[in-house]
Amino acid sequence: MALEGTFEDGVVHVTGDARQRYHDARGYGYPLEGNEIALAPVEAAHLLYRGDLEAVVDDGRRLGFRGFVASEPGVDFGVRFLVYADLRQRGFYLSPASEPWLADPPEADFAVFPRGKGPGDGEVEYALCVIGERTDVAGEDLEDGVLAVVDEESEITYLEVSRPEIAGSSAVDLPTGVEADLLTDRVILWEPPFELYERAFYGQPLEGREYDEPTLQCSLLEAAYLAEEGVIDLDPDVALERGREVEGDRFDRRLAVYTELRERGVVPKTGYKFGADFRTYADVDSVDDLGHSELLVRVLPADHVFEPRNLALDVRLSHGVRKTMVFALVEKAGIEWRSLQRLTP
Amino acid sequence: MALEGTFEDGVVHVTGDARQRYHDARGYGYPLEGNEIALAPVEAAHLLYRGDLEAVVDDGRRLGFRGFVASEPGVDFGVRFLVYADLRQRGFYLSPASEPWLADPPEADFAVFPRGKGPGDGEVEYALCVIGERTDVAGEDLEDGVLAVVDEESEITYLEVSRPEIAGSSAVDLPTGVEADLLTDRVILWEPPFELYERAFYGQPLEGREYDEPTLQCSLLEAAYLAEEGVIDLDPDVALERGREVEGDRFDRRLAVYTELRERGVVPKTGYKFGADFRTYADVDSVDDLGHSELLVRVLPADHVFEPRNLALDVRLSHGVRKTMVFALVEKAGIEWRSLQRLTP
Repeated sequence: MALEGTFEDGVVHVTGDARQRYHDARGYGYPLEGNEIALAPVEAAHLLYRGDLEAVVDDGRRLGFRGFVASEPGVDFGVRFLVYADLRQRGFYLSPASEPWLADPPEADFAVFPRGKGPGDGEVEYALCVIGERTDVAGEDLEDGVLAVVDEESEITYLEVSRPEIAGSSAVDLPTGVEADLLTDRVILWEPPFELYERAFYGQPLEGREYDEPTLQCSLLEAAYLAEEGVIDLDPDVALERGREVEGDRFDRRLAVYTELRERGVVPKTGYKFGADFRTYADVDSVDDLGHSELLVRVLPADHVFEPRNLALDVRLSHGVRKTMVFALVEKAGIEWRSLQRLTP
Repeated sequence: MALEGTFEDGVVHVTGDARQRYHDARGYGYPLEGNEIALAPVEAAHLLYRGDLEAVVDDGRRLGFRGFVASEPGVDFGVRFLVYADLRQRGFYLSPASEPWLADPPEADFAVFPRGKGPGDGEVEYALCVIGERTDVAGEDLEDGVLAVVDEESEITYLEVSRPEIAGSSAVDLPTGVEADLLTDRVILWEPPFELYERAFYGQPLEGREYDEPTLQCSLLEAAYLAEEGVIDLDPDVALERGREVEGDRFDRRLAVYTELRERGVVPKTGYKFGADFRTYADVDSVDDLGHSELLVRVLPADHVFEPRNLALDVRLSHGVRKTMVFALVEKAGIEWRSLQRLTP
């Protein structure tokens, strides 16, 4: 016998054998007294959709799936329902990430349980936040967990946010006193030692790679770093000033990230062709034997606000070129690193 | 015997057998009286770099390659020289796109001649504009030709700009009077005729694709178009208003492009996963037999100004997914279409 529910104070109450049928057996809602349970609107809608619940009575009106959905019961109901239904279809149980559904809920919209587990088993597979593609995301809100983005045609992309470890083994003793000329927004190093390019991977040879002691073109970032390290005979302040002239504050942020990467043994080179600030190599021994670059790094101020569409673009591109997308969020106190990867639950 | 030049009024004069040696045989400069020629700074720098010219005398100073380059002879000398040298190395002759190098120069920085041809042969392979990666490009300046973008580490990307023909064969008779509910920023169509999804590719079935008459979720754009066409029982103004609420002016631009694409027989679906507005299918017969989508379309106001880095990102991504990147520049008078593709000269 199909049951009916009653919508009250934001949840749908169901009596009868609801507790066994919906909660204990299939992880919907939370138990109240006796056999009664309460369902979140998305849970009730899903049971209506499946035909397991016959109707929800709301203020005297008896609503089926269409009526209940059209009444938009709850904040962001549409996108939340789509994600709820999608994960159910993929074989997961999930609950709203709040009490009393869960005793100790994560900060998210839903807690998704490991396959085969439910709300009572004390394990959470994903802390899931749900947004529409038009909802902006502040950089500081990119916390460990999964972001489900629902696009305008109701397709869902799952993005996993983590804190990557940034570390590598690229390091080399640097020379000093290399002659350098500053040209508009790049710097030429005249016949620096072979190793500066070949082992430490600074600059780009003017002649291609046929010469033992190539003339190197360096970016302003590379030059500012090498000037600060005393490698080239250019005043570090001159390089920094030129950088700020052509890029403003962005140059300072990029130099902070460049420096941090070099200090962690990771070689940053321009990520321009990928629309990023850097691509990085963790273990450079020799440019002749260069592996695949592992990360694409985009440098942003810590208060940056992302449009989900741009996140999708970055993650899609990095996936396509087999790299991990990393955001370096620069604040005064340091750099916060976040990686984003597509996830198939 | 190596020759010397003299820098005067922005060009380098060379006498001796310069005309035969540099101009007639290898396409450098333009002839003056007798055997004298004049070279653009990039041409002179290239001859210095190759060791073919021994020095350039500038205001009494005798400069070799390093000195001449460091004097930055001419606007944007650095990036222009890098591109000039790169194309020479690839076996092309090229001239500044101005008189008297060429009788009828294209509007560009350089005229690149077909392989094996030179400035006197009256043919131009590419009209080439050169920019640094930090130079913005106005949408209205995206003219047919090639854009050479020099990144901060002096690598060059060649982008070919053209005017794509937008046309397809997707068309279908549409039903009328389909029941629809507007939910926040999407619209649900209740049991529309099979063909609306299956043949015309509107919306996305709520249930997956197992049903004959699926409930369809449509984007606001699809709904606004279908409402305007009288297909669904939703007031077109309501859909338009909701679109403007959630997207502002952008909604009007996107609807103009959506409508134009549909009218040209091309099916636009969301390009969200590619960070674009639309991916398009030129020849849809049936959703079950859907080919690969051909274009990624980004909708922009006609006065949009591009950062080259974002162009690189779009072109790289579209190339990776075997689609052509198209910009739809929307102005009051209509839509200007431009495509961008990577080019290897």
